[in-house]
Amino acid sequence: MARRNIFRMRIAFSDCDPAQIVYFANYFRWFDTSSHEFFTACGMPSWRETLATRGAIGTPLVDVGAKFMNSATYGEDIEIESSVVEWKTKSFVIRHVARRGETVLAEGREVRVLAIRDPENTLRIKATPIPEDFRALCE
Amino acid sequence: MARRNIFRMRIAFSDCDPAQIVYFANYFRWFDTSSHEFFTACGMPSWRETLATRGAIGTPLVDVGAKFMNSATYGEDIEIESSVVEWKTKSFVIRHVARRGETVLAEGREVRVLAIRDPENTLRIKATPIPEDFRALCE
Amino acid sequence: MARRNIFRMRIAFSDCDPAQIVYFANYFRWFDTSSHEFFTACGMPSWRETLATRGAIGTPLVDVGAKFMNSATYGEDIEIESSVVEWKTKSFVIRHVARRGETVLAEGREVRVLAIRDPENTLRIKATPIPEDFRALCE
Amino acid sequence: MARRNIFRMRIAFSDCDPAQIVYFANYFRWFDTSSHEFFTACGMPSWRETLATRGAIGTPLVDVGAKFMNSATYGEDIEIESSVVEWKTKSFVIRHVARRGETVLAEGREVRVLAIRDPENTLRIKATPIPEDFRALCE
Repeated sequence: MARRNIFRMRIAFSDCDPAQIVYFANYFRWFDTSSHEFFTACGMPSWRETLATRGAIGTPLVDVGAKFMNSATYGEDIEIESSVVEWKTKSFVIRHVARRGETVLAEGREVRVLAIRDPENTLRIKATPIPEDFRALCE
Repeated sequence: MARRNIFRMRIAFSDCDPAQIVYFANYFRWFDTSSHEFFTACGMPSWRETLATRGAIGTPLVDVGAKFMNSATYGEDIEIESSVVEWKTKSFVIRHVARRGETVLAEGREVRVLAIRDPENTLRIKATPIPEDFRALCE
Repeated sequence: MARRNIFRMRIAFSDCDPAQIVYFANYFRWFDTSSHEFFTACGMPSWRETLATRGAIGTPLVDVGAKFMNSATYGEDIEIESSVVEWKTKSFVIRHVARRGETVLAEGREVRVLAIRDPENTLRIKATPIPEDFRALCE
Repeated sequence: MARRNIFRMRIAFSDCDPAQIVYFANYFRWFDTSSHEFFTACGMPSWRETLATRGAIGTPLVDVGAKFMNSATYGEDIEIESSVVEWKTKSFVIRHVARRGETVLAEGREVRVLAIRDPENTLRIKATPIPEDFRALCE
């Protein structure tokens, strides 16, 4: 069974919109944070370190999706469960489930690549094959 | 051909992350803003007005996805083209394309419902069938 | 000695800007969240409840300031200490100190009023005198 | 008379909080964006350029304050007027006024330094004296 990580947080007033519920785009932010927490829990070095040792600057998203099942509001405690559900040569897929108790609030799916700074244009970035040791840590 | 709207904006420093590129979740925020601008351009009344006249509080998202093709950074001017590409009884789909000049940066797809406050729990919301006149305005 | 509350959090990647440090405006968001946590810890009812019982919708800020002493970056754990340092008839002042271990990162000062919805224009809000029991809870 | 710049924008749904008004911390974000627009209008090179030519990475804030006079909500068009009101050796002060038509919504004050990356710890930054030509451009 795949490694998984649980990221716990409390919804803030500033996370909610005039409809008094979580502004949906915050779930993408939290899914991303949960991915970072997942990597850390797996023992991955920081991007600052991988940048120095391998030129890798992070795992930017190339395709992202989410379904929103139930709304939530400020003051509520939620948790996000994250795990890698698919590995390809240059990309991998992380699945997230956000829950308040037993209630599923949202499900997300991130397709990520491992990126290095584009040597031809340092304002841009490009994908690089995922090293075996990176995958081994997160599986 | 479907109505479409162009939303123009400049990327701010605060929209970018430590990789010096737009933080991906901001595209979802901008797609949502572009949908609001689209509704306004179609002549839709504000949600404050529809809340008073019909109890409708907005068009929350139930399913959202985006693909990210090219990165962008602060100081760059971009535009987002938005149109409704599908109508169902209780939901509709808005497609967004973000461009910097001829370069496509990201494509998004929002599935929205028309929501009213849940009469059984005013902290929650629920979907209601889309009125003909709403659809006629946006087509 | 005044009541105080400690709000603990970890800085996320998305909280940082292209200079790789916390984007300053996030401290204001966190100070505000810390104020909400402070109120909750003091036993204050939620704004949803006070809205129903007294028409009070929250404690909006009328004057806010912060000093930034040291920068911080993602993955770092910080804490924010908050307490009310001054009470006036219609306003009060909350002081915040953000620390990473022994290092003070930022200090903030919020002047808040207790607000009700403006009966003459429901899109606007107005200040109301602070009830004794509200003050007694937070002192 | 000092140079000034007007930054125009429309308030988005996502800028507003459950009280249906602009979440206050967004004003700090907009003041900062308005400062960037001010620098650009003055003919300042980008930070990417100054980083390469002088090692300067930006003008981080060391002290920030704002007063909030009137609330605003989504769909409203506002403008922010910005100008430098004080110059010191290593810092300067930018004043911002946010208006909706004739109504002043908020006033802000930013104390900024010119920063370079700290040579002793590249995760941190430090202030450097403001060059004459930088000041001449913005006065």
